[in-house]
Amino acid sequence: MSLPARITVVEVGPREGFQFEGIGHPDRISTADKIRLVDALSETGVETIQVTSFVSPKAVPQMADAEAVVAGITPRDGVRYTAVYLNDVGLRRARATGRLNITGKLTLTASETFALRNQNRTLEQDRAMQVTMARLYHDLGIPIEHASIMAAFGCNYEGDVPLDRVLALARELDELIAGAGDRLRTLILADTMGWATPGQVRRTVAAVRDAVPGVRIGLHLHDTRGLGIANAYAALCEGVDYFDSAVGGLGGCPFAGHRGAAGNICSEELVFLCEELGIETGIDLEKLVACAALAEEIVGHPLPSKILHSGVLPRTRRHVA
Amino acid sequence: MSLPARITVVEVGPREGFQFEGIGHPDRISTADKIRLVDALSETGVETIQVTSFVSPKAVPQMADAEAVVAGITPRDGVRYTAVYLNDVGLRRARATGRLNITGKLTLTASETFALRNQNRTLEQDRAMQVTMARLYHDLGIPIEHASIMAAFGCNYEGDVPLDRVLALARELDELIAGAGDRLRTLILADTMGWATPGQVRRTVAAVRDAVPGVRIGLHLHDTRGLGIANAYAALCEGVDYFDSAVGGLGGCPFAGHRGAAGNICSEELVFLCEELGIETGIDLEKLVACAALAEEIVGHPLPSKILHSGVLPRTRRHVA
Repeated sequence: MSLPARITVVEVGPREGFQFEGIGHPDRISTADKIRLVDALSETGVETIQVTSFVSPKAVPQMADAEAVVAGITPRDGVRYTAVYLNDVGLRRARATGRLNITGKLTLTASETFALRNQNRTLEQDRAMQVTMARLYHDLGIPIEHASIMAAFGCNYEGDVPLDRVLALARELDELIAGAGDRLRTLILADTMGWATPGQVRRTVAAVRDAVPGVRIGLHLHDTRGLGIANAYAALCEGVDYFDSAVGGLGGCPFAGHRGAAGNICSEELVFLCEELGIETGIDLEKLVACAALAEEIVGHPLPSKILHSGVLPRTRRHVA
Repeated sequence: MSLPARITVVEVGPREGFQFEGIGHPDRISTADKIRLVDALSETGVETIQVTSFVSPKAVPQMADAEAVVAGITPRDGVRYTAVYLNDVGLRRARATGRLNITGKLTLTASETFALRNQNRTLEQDRAMQVTMARLYHDLGIPIEHASIMAAFGCNYEGDVPLDRVLALARELDELIAGAGDRLRTLILADTMGWATPGQVRRTVAAVRDAVPGVRIGLHLHDTRGLGIANAYAALCEGVDYFDSAVGGLGGCPFAGHRGAAGNICSEELVFLCEELGIETGIDLEKLVACAALAEEIVGHPLPSKILHSGVLPRTRRHVA
């Protein structure tokens, strides 16, 4: 495989990052600040922004303002605003806003223990929910084109995830969507707990491509153990052209003792990597770094982004010239 | 190229990391703490530890205790203890300790402005000093087998460094050492100011290999802009089997506003990457992470290492099993 000419970056910081920041302090990030960051991100050239989560406010109180956040943003032409939901209730809430891009998406998880903890469902219950969701999408006239596999690279509760399990889930999602009369176009492999390593990323991407030919592969990477951007580079080397990432590395925190606090890969580091490799992202790196500075101001502690603190190389180049 | 079967890791944290930490506060890291970290590192299986710098105590007061540090360590069989020096005075001081592994090494810099600021010499003066050093090594009966090129990937003062300049310096060092009757065996390309990117690393390594065939290539990488470990992975993909790195990512600091404070790549992340790729390092990852915790305790602020704060994956695996 060769490097892709262009990639899609899905900005997940306002959803996943702020969800993490709000653990134990649901009101810590104000609705106004959430809106401010989404609006700033919409000026960077990013195609898709994951704005919030429509999940149970009892389970995830920091996302209880999902409707208010969506109502407060200033939609910009050309930007897709999306949200996360784990069941039919969440999908209906998201759709009711009238302002979000709702794409049909089914999700399965490669670890039952994680599914129980995250979705509060066994794998069988999770499968049944996907069938329910598929019917609901159909009723709403929304084609199902996306799927994702959570915990695809390993699990803190179950350990290593065998590749065969991931391939079986990829085929299952492909067939489930075909059975609903649609076609799986993009499959996201999520390294939910930060277990991926570069060799594993390359082997997994290649094997999943063989298992579901013609499907675009995307990656959702975390930088839990410092290999996040190396994993992204490994994926680019396999031709992967779709990545989730979080501005500033939101959701992560470099403080000692803050275990598990490693966010998604950092959007501006991903964009910088791509620029230097000659891969287009459509994103203005300096504007994105300004958003990372805003995100850091909002959370009130240093974010993991290195480039935010060291300066952007293209700007340094111009300064030198 | 395929991945190497085994790499050499040179631990530079006690030298480069503590040198950075001491900027403006020369006594901040006590001699006893420096010794404590070196001795702890010597138990990890690492082959080479760069202990200190024999440089002008006026210019670099935090390294004024170089002799005391070397005198204080407890040498362990099988570990090579080395030091940095930039001129004949430093070499004589290092040698006088009687406890260091002195290998003949010549260094040139790909940026004159950086050479002026770091070595206080023009490129011509720097060349002349290498000739002086070569003669001194010869007089002392020390074969010259190592060389390095500083600022090989870019310079904050001069901008991008053309590859041709690096290749010319590689040939010059090769000829200089051959002219002294020795043979260049290992050439270190130093990304002194953190400009390297993965594509550039691969192109540069391949071209330098062609320019000086048969010479082992090593990399000295900084994580200034978040791509450090991706650069290491890119180098491994080119078969590079020699890396400098700093425990904990010493020399870096994740605090905002601390510009330029991005240390070398983090030793434990490099070792973790290699373990997961099936590459031997000879280093015990858990012992190394314990050294990173000690380094963090000594400097008194969070270090950039992610794995230090998130836990070691092999241990998580065993815990799950």
